[in-house]
Amino acid sequence: MNLLHPLADAKAGECVDELLTRPSLRIERIVSLGQASPPDFWYNQAEGEWVLLLAGAARLRFADEDEARELGPGDCLDIAAHRRHRIDWTAPATPTVWLAVFYS
Amino acid sequence: MNLLHPLADAKAGECVDELLTRPSLRIERIVSLGQASPPDFWYNQAEGEWVLLLAGAARLRFADEDEARELGPGDCLDIAAHRRHRIDWTAPATPTVWLAVFYS
Repeated sequence: MNLLHPLADAKAGECVDELLTRPSLRIERIVSLGQASPPDFWYNQAEGEWVLLLAGAARLRFADEDEARELGPGDCLDIAAHRRHRIDWTAPATPTVWLAVFYS
Repeated sequence: MNLLHPLADAKAGECVDELLTRPSLRIERIVSLGQASPPDFWYNQAEGEWVLLLAGAARLRFADEDEARELGPGDCLDIAAHRRHRIDWTAPATPTVWLAVFYS
């Protein structure tokens, strides 16, 4: 399987593919196309999430930081369980491809 | 952290960076530059390993398959625990960047 070709068409909404599911572990590919979190929405997840941007561009904001983080291809970060965060922006014209590793 | 810039110089040997370590989970970046498994060597790992090629090119061979698999950027596969495999080849002139998620 290739995570970059072909890409799901995310015009109508983010596309999520489960790549691997094991006890306490789930790996997903998420394709965004301009989607962002709703205003004032914050993710507050029971699982940890390690995330890697494979293509595109995004701004991810943590509730405990003043500035959003600008993410490009190759950028990765760990989101601890219950650390509130939101997606402020994803590139509107080109797909943004995330690899997300959820763990508990 | 960015997994593509800067790249470790792997001329003298593969470079491994631990990105995340949790109970039953370890995420690593591995940078290869022409390295391959020694002749007749097979990995036989106690952990499962989900692997994604981020850059470069490689040939991965499973002991239970006749042909090596050609891997390029975006290609991913799951290597079950104890499924014997080896790296036949990695690109000699440009770095090959692997993301490896080890789980048990």
